[in-house]
Amino acid sequence: MRYRPKGHTVVPDTQNAPDTTIEFLYLSEPDMIAAGVTDMAACVDTMSEMLVDFKRGDYRMAGVENDLHGAQIYFPQESPFEGMPLDGPDRRFMAMPAYLGGSFQTAGCKWYGSNVENRKIGLPRSILMFTLNDKDTGAPLAHMSANLLSAYRTGAIPGVGARYLAREDARIVGIAGPGPMNRTSLEALVAVRPGIDTVKVFGRSQGSIDAYIGWVRENFPGITTVEQVDSLQGAVEGCDIVSIAIPSPSGVDHYPYVADEWVKPGALVLCSAHLALEESLVQRARHVADARSIYEAWGAELPGNAHDTVGIWGMALVDRVRDGRMSPEQFEDLGEIIEGDTPGRTSDDEVFVYSVGGMPVEDVAWATRVYRNAVERGIGTKLKLWDKPALA
Amino acid sequence: MRYRPKGHTVVPDTQNAPDTTIEFLYLSEPDMIAAGVTDMAACVDTMSEMLVDFKRGDYRMAGVENDLHGAQIYFPQESPFEGMPLDGPDRRFMAMPAYLGGSFQTAGCKWYGSNVENRKIGLPRSILMFTLNDKDTGAPLAHMSANLLSAYRTGAIPGVGARYLAREDARIVGIAGPGPMNRTSLEALVAVRPGIDTVKVFGRSQGSIDAYIGWVRENFPGITTVEQVDSLQGAVEGCDIVSIAIPSPSGVDHYPYVADEWVKPGALVLCSAHLALEESLVQRARHVADARSIYEAWGAELPGNAHDTVGIWGMALVDRVRDGRMSPEQFEDLGEIIEGDTPGRTSDDEVFVYSVGGMPVEDVAWATRVYRNAVERGIGTKLKLWDKPALA
Repeated sequence: MRYRPKGHTVVPDTQNAPDTTIEFLYLSEPDMIAAGVTDMAACVDTMSEMLVDFKRGDYRMAGVENDLHGAQIYFPQESPFEGMPLDGPDRRFMAMPAYLGGSFQTAGCKWYGSNVENRKIGLPRSILMFTLNDKDTGAPLAHMSANLLSAYRTGAIPGVGARYLAREDARIVGIAGPGPMNRTSLEALVAVRPGIDTVKVFGRSQGSIDAYIGWVRENFPGITTVEQVDSLQGAVEGCDIVSIAIPSPSGVDHYPYVADEWVKPGALVLCSAHLALEESLVQRARHVADARSIYEAWGAELPGNAHDTVGIWGMALVDRVRDGRMSPEQFEDLGEIIEGDTPGRTSDDEVFVYSVGGMPVEDVAWATRVYRNAVERGIGTKLKLWDKPALA
Repeated sequence: MRYRPKGHTVVPDTQNAPDTTIEFLYLSEPDMIAAGVTDMAACVDTMSEMLVDFKRGDYRMAGVENDLHGAQIYFPQESPFEGMPLDGPDRRFMAMPAYLGGSFQTAGCKWYGSNVENRKIGLPRSILMFTLNDKDTGAPLAHMSANLLSAYRTGAIPGVGARYLAREDARIVGIAGPGPMNRTSLEALVAVRPGIDTVKVFGRSQGSIDAYIGWVRENFPGITTVEQVDSLQGAVEGCDIVSIAIPSPSGVDHYPYVADEWVKPGALVLCSAHLALEESLVQRARHVADARSIYEAWGAELPGNAHDTVGIWGMALVDRVRDGRMSPEQFEDLGEIIEGDTPGRTSDDEVFVYSVGGMPVEDVAWATRVYRNAVERGIGTKLKLWDKPALA
């Protein structure tokens, strides 16, 4: 098998003995950057396309129901065994496999370990790798550093929401939770709404707030005003777009709470983590998710009040549809809006609440694009698996 | 972080700025061979040690119950989407993550795609890769070709069984199902019972039988007699060790059936695939599994008669214990025998039926040993992930 940059089906060569050589690309983090992994505008385009493929059903994820996030290793609170990792914030390993159709036609798996202690030695809390595969033979096409891949695909999903749901003239962004999620999210927002000139930042750690504000000043010359606000209310009031990504313990009482009167007419509220909303705001807003079926699948596995267990806003919508507080039509899907099955923003005053989850098809989509760039640009280290397999 | 060949915990350097460089090894299939992946005797030793770690509980697999085989992508029977892979024999992708303690202290994930059509172009039906990781930071230690890794760890498990359960003077081996599974199994049997001089082969495809017999003649000079037999009965009668690995559809009526009178006193019957046994043979034999708790975990997820759904013999044992046809003590665990908690073979006439499953900790164990060999021998291609991560 010759080196096939775009994952085409392998056709046997009937003239000669088949060439069974398999080569694939290794892409380090610098290689990934050179291949465009931080091109947020392209990533938003890719995620828009992926959400349409997803909505059509042209994908497979793990599990007999085709809806698993992945396979996660949990560590125990304590262990009699020397050396066994113990439970802690973000202490896990996780494998996230998927296949994606459309113009992608690839399969792949993200695999990572997480440990907040990594920060003490200058490493990110998660170290992620992604393997991209030929969908037919299963042969590896590339093995790549996936920290940026993952961060950009995650940030691009709010960007797709902003493209279809934010006011065209959006200028002021509220950032609640100045973590990595809200860095790539802001990059995506600026990519789709270049008129953004003001950012208000609320956070719980002064160090993170300072770092975030410094990062905005350094990277976004078009953002002329960056200011700290002292409450969630301050990050919501007067903003055209609000991005809320504040992790919290499970249980509705712990979730960040947004009052109706804080939210400006026409605003888009992006929810990438836990959230609770005042009932009148729930009624006033339109509710759109990146991929409704995923929340429905999660909801099917959780008894009773799913939102109390999993704090992201889409789970509250599952609960509301399930118990009749909301009609199924009120829980909208962005892929349907992108496809034109239902309208996006219909007036300047419409308020949107947009739920952001995260799923392995996003990694496959962006990895495929970055990989194809790398092949075109001659980036990466070519590795040979074998000339002829020992067992065939 | 400096290159740490043995997965030690990273300790922050308080004198200087931390070195955040991450490097890891790429091991192609030829590299894996050079690093000892086909050293079956060492692999049997490693699997013996792993089964003891497993029995003690010094491991983690995926899932909240710590017992998942992995995350599998299933393809549909048909699809409206152009290019989507369709269901077929072995058509799947699978990610299998695990952590293993003991002397291993590593985590890792096997990831592969399977498609029998690969055979037409000279490729194995599955193309497997394995990533080995530092258990604490999650950093990759190695990315390796895993076809041989997987085949040898799989074959070594019957070898461990033969080490503890076969007669010391075993001479005659019956092979039912001359596929790849029974190649590495025979290598393992010869490694632990060098007196083996006769092999009887039963199979459903003359091509596979011929290839198997040729392979035995070429690779095992100590095996002086290799002959084809025309029935399962012929591969069981008179044999000291019988290795049955014949895949079949679900449903007890489809499974290969072994009659009591075929089985020689003192024989070890290795079951790596579906199997049904005559009731008096069930009563006469001792029943040992590679890892009882895995069958119990599978059984807990299957209603009613688990063996009818999953044909491997260990599931029949789960059913029998569950409905009282067998006492829990009659379903033995090899790790307990290795540890000396219960005796292994106690007489020359004792008949053993040994169930072989397969689980991701086996890959972690063998990958760790082969990786450490590679580091010691200077084998492989060193790859750099980054000098300093872009996001930390």
